[in-house]
Amino acid sequence: MDTPLIVVNFKAYEESDGERGISLARACEQVSEETGVAIIACPTPAMLGRIAHEIASPVWSQHVDAVAPGGQTGHVTAQSVRDAGALGTIINHSERRMRLADIGFVVDACKALELVTCVCTNTVDVSRAAAAFSPDYIAIEPPELIGGDISVTTADPGIVSKTVELVEAVDPSVDVLCGAGVKNANDVSKAIELGARGVLLASGVVKSPDPKRTLTDLASAI
Amino acid sequence: MDTPLIVVNFKAYEESDGERGISLARACEQVSEETGVAIIACPTPAMLGRIAHEIASPVWSQHVDAVAPGGQTGHVTAQSVRDAGALGTIINHSERRMRLADIGFVVDACKALELVTCVCTNTVDVSRAAAAFSPDYIAIEPPELIGGDISVTTADPGIVSKTVELVEAVDPSVDVLCGAGVKNANDVSKAIELGARGVLLASGVVKSPDPKRTLTDLASAI
Amino acid sequence: MDTPLIVVNFKAYEESDGERGISLARACEQVSEETGVAIIACPTPAMLGRIAHEIASPVWSQHVDAVAPGGQTGHVTAQSVRDAGALGTIINHSERRMRLADIGFVVDACKALELVTCVCTNTVDVSRAAAAFSPDYIAIEPPELIGGDISVTTADPGIVSKTVELVEAVDPSVDVLCGAGVKNANDVSKAIELGARGVLLASGVVKSPDPKRTLTDLASAI
Amino acid sequence: MDTPLIVVNFKAYEESDGERGISLARACEQVSEETGVAIIACPTPAMLGRIAHEIASPVWSQHVDAVAPGGQTGHVTAQSVRDAGALGTIINHSERRMRLADIGFVVDACKALELVTCVCTNTVDVSRAAAAFSPDYIAIEPPELIGGDISVTTADPGIVSKTVELVEAVDPSVDVLCGAGVKNANDVSKAIELGARGVLLASGVVKSPDPKRTLTDLASAI
Repeated sequence: MDTPLIVVNFKAYEESDGERGISLARACEQVSEETGVAIIACPTPAMLGRIAHEIASPVWSQHVDAVAPGGQTGHVTAQSVRDAGALGTIINHSERRMRLADIGFVVDACKALELVTCVCTNTVDVSRAAAAFSPDYIAIEPPELIGGDISVTTADPGIVSKTVELVEAVDPSVDVLCGAGVKNANDVSKAIELGARGVLLASGVVKSPDPKRTLTDLASAI
Repeated sequence: MDTPLIVVNFKAYEESDGERGISLARACEQVSEETGVAIIACPTPAMLGRIAHEIASPVWSQHVDAVAPGGQTGHVTAQSVRDAGALGTIINHSERRMRLADIGFVVDACKALELVTCVCTNTVDVSRAAAAFSPDYIAIEPPELIGGDISVTTADPGIVSKTVELVEAVDPSVDVLCGAGVKNANDVSKAIELGARGVLLASGVVKSPDPKRTLTDLASAI
Repeated sequence: MDTPLIVVNFKAYEESDGERGISLARACEQVSEETGVAIIACPTPAMLGRIAHEIASPVWSQHVDAVAPGGQTGHVTAQSVRDAGALGTIINHSERRMRLADIGFVVDACKALELVTCVCTNTVDVSRAAAAFSPDYIAIEPPELIGGDISVTTADPGIVSKTVELVEAVDPSVDVLCGAGVKNANDVSKAIELGARGVLLASGVVKSPDPKRTLTDLASAI
Repeated sequence: MDTPLIVVNFKAYEESDGERGISLARACEQVSEETGVAIIACPTPAMLGRIAHEIASPVWSQHVDAVAPGGQTGHVTAQSVRDAGALGTIINHSERRMRLADIGFVVDACKALELVTCVCTNTVDVSRAAAAFSPDYIAIEPPELIGGDISVTTADPGIVSKTVELVEAVDPSVDVLCGAGVKNANDVSKAIELGARGVLLASGVVKSPDPKRTLTDLASAI
C-alpha cells in the first residue's frame, strides 16, 4: 500500500451504466498502464463482476453489506464481491452510511478474504472512530466539499492534515485518502502534500467529456 | 407473459458466487432451452451484468433501490439493471423489504424501462396492497413456508388460491407466483393448479447437488 | 368515525417540546370543547404519555414501530402507546415511511388494541395499496403540497377526490383525510367538499403565533 | 460523574408500559433515595416525559435520533428529550443500532444541551471507535451475554477490563459501564472490580417479581 492511488467511484450515474461503465473502466485501465499510477475503478453494483472480469487493473466494490453468505436476497456479501473479482471495497460512503457495529463487521469480513478496505468519513472524530477498525484506508469527505466546485486546496486544507495526524495516532498503518474537493492535478498534489495517500473522486471523471484525458491529468500529479 | 415460469433466486449463497454463479445460470439456460419452459436466473448483485452478458435466457435482478440515477453510491437503479442486461427484477423480497411508497416508485421506474416486475408479499392483505401498483407478478411467500421443508401442497394451499382471487379483483392483469414451499415437480403442478402462473424458488435449486437435474424435474410439471 | 376531525401533528418542532407541547395540547383541548369539533393532538414521542394524561381530548401517537412488546429498546409498540393513554396513531408519515409489510403489522396490532389508525400516503396508487389494510383513515399528502404555501384548494384538488373514490372502491369503511396544503378554514371546507372526512396539519397550527385562534378558525369550517 | 451508577433500561416490555412504568420508575427513585446510589430510569419513549415529570431521580431516554428539531414526525430529538425532563440518553443500544456518523451527531447534540451520553458497544474495537466521540459513558454489551443467564463474572471478564483499558487510551474522561450479564450484587461488584463505573441492565429488574428488592440488592454492592 505504499504507492499513491486514485479511486474512481462510478456511483449510479447514467454514464456508468452498462457498456458506458465498461468504457469508463477501460479508461482507468489504460491510464493506469500508461502512467504506472494505481487507478481503481468502482463500478455500479450490477457491472462489478463483468468489469472485474474484463479489465486488468484493480476493481473495488462501492459497498458491502454487513451480512454473511446465505439467505440474503439483494444484499452484497464480502465473499460475493471477492469471488466476482473485486480486490477491495468502499465502506460507509456518504451516500451509503452504515451502522457503527456493521462497519466493524464488514472490515473484519473483508480482511479475512484479503479485500482492501476504504472507510469513508465526514469529520475528524468520525475518522478517529473508523481508525479503530484498522481499515487499509480512510477517505475523508468533508460534507461542504462533496459534489461541489470547491477544491480542497482552496477550502479548509486543515481537515486533511488533521485527519492524517489523528488517524496515525490511533493506528499508523491506516492511510488517508482525500475524498472530496478533488478536481484536477493541482488538487491531487495538494492532497498528497497534506499527507493523503491518494484521492477518491467521482463526477470529475465519470461526467468528464474525456475521462481518459482527465485521468491522465490527475495521474500526472503523482 | 402467458406461459408459466420458474424464477430461481440465487440469493447470497456461496454456491451463487463468482464462477459458481455462472454455472448455475448456465444450468437455467440449458434446461430452459431443452424444455421450452421459461426459467429466470436472479444472480447475486455482483454477478448480474456478467451473467446477463453471457447467458441467453432471461436474467432478473434480486432488488432495485428506490433512487433515480445520480450520486447514489452502492445503490441499484432500475436503469443500471436494465443497461446491465437484466429483463426484470424481484422487488420487496422477504429478505429485502421495502417501504410502501418506494415499491410504488420502483414499479413505476421499471415499467418506464420495460423491465418485468415481481413484488414479493407475505400475506393476503399485503398482496392486495401490492396489486395496487399493477406489477407483472406478485410472489406470495407465506412466512411459515420460507426456507423450510414444508411443501405448499401439504401446508395451507388456501393462501395461494385466495391471493390469486383477491389480486385478480384489484387488477386482473397481475399474475401470481408461488414464492415459498416449492421443492419438486408435484409442488409446481399444485401451485399452477391453485391459480399461480409459476414459482419462485431458491435453495432447492441453488443448493441442489445437481441443479440441472432439479430444474429439469421442476420444468417437467409445466 | 362519522364526525369530521382535525388532526394536529406536533412533529419535532421546538414549539412542541416540553411545556410548550402541553400548551399546544391545551389549545387543542379547549377549542375542541368550545366548538364541539374533534381535534386530535399528536405530541412528540417524549411527551405523549404526559399529554395524554393531562388533557381530556383525544391524543394520537406520531408513529408506531412494527415490533411486539419485548426487548426493543428505543422502539414504540402499539401497546406502549395505548397504555400511555393514546387513542390512535399516525402510521407511515412522509417523514417516517414504513415498509409495506410493517404497515400491515402495525395496523393489525393497533386494531387488536382498539387504537384508531391513520395511514399517510403520497399518491393515489399508494392510497389504494394502504386501503387493503383497512385502517380507519388514510391521509393523502401530495408531495408538492407538503410544508409549502400552496393550498389544496388552489393546487390539484383532483388528487383528494380521486383518492376518496379509489379508496372507497377498495374498502368503503376507510375515510380519507386531506394531509397537506391546509392553511385555513377555506381549505378545510374545500377538503370536506372534495370528500375528505377531515384534515391533518402541522406547522400551520404549531408555528402559529396564536394556535388557539388558528384552531378556532379551522374548526369554524366544520 | 464520579460515583458508580445503575442504569435500568425499561425496553419495550409490557411491564414497562403505562402505569406499570410509573411504578418501576418509583422503585428506582425510592431505592436511590434509600441507598444513595445513583439509579437511572430509562422509560419507554411514550412514558419518558411523564416519568421525568413525576419522579425526582434521574431519567434518561432510551434513544435519540440524529435529526435537528423540525419536520421530523415520529423522531426523537435531543432537545425534545431534554425539554421533557430527561438528563441523559442511551445511544446505539444493541436493539437500536445507529450509523457511525449519526452517533457523532447525537453525542455532539446532547453535549450542547448538557445531556449525559451513554453509547452502547458490542466489541472492544467498536468501543475504541465510540470513544473517539468522547461520550460520558460507553456500555459494553458482549453479544453472547445479552438477555441470557450467563454472568459477566463467570463468562469472559477480560472484555470489560480490556475495554476499560483501550477506551482510557483514547479518552481517559470516558467511563465504562458493564452492559450485559449483570444479574445480582456479585455481578455489580465484579464489574466495578474490573474497572467499570457501573452497570446497565434491563430484564433482571423490569421482569423481577419485586423490582425494589432487586434494586436494593444490586445497590448494596456499590
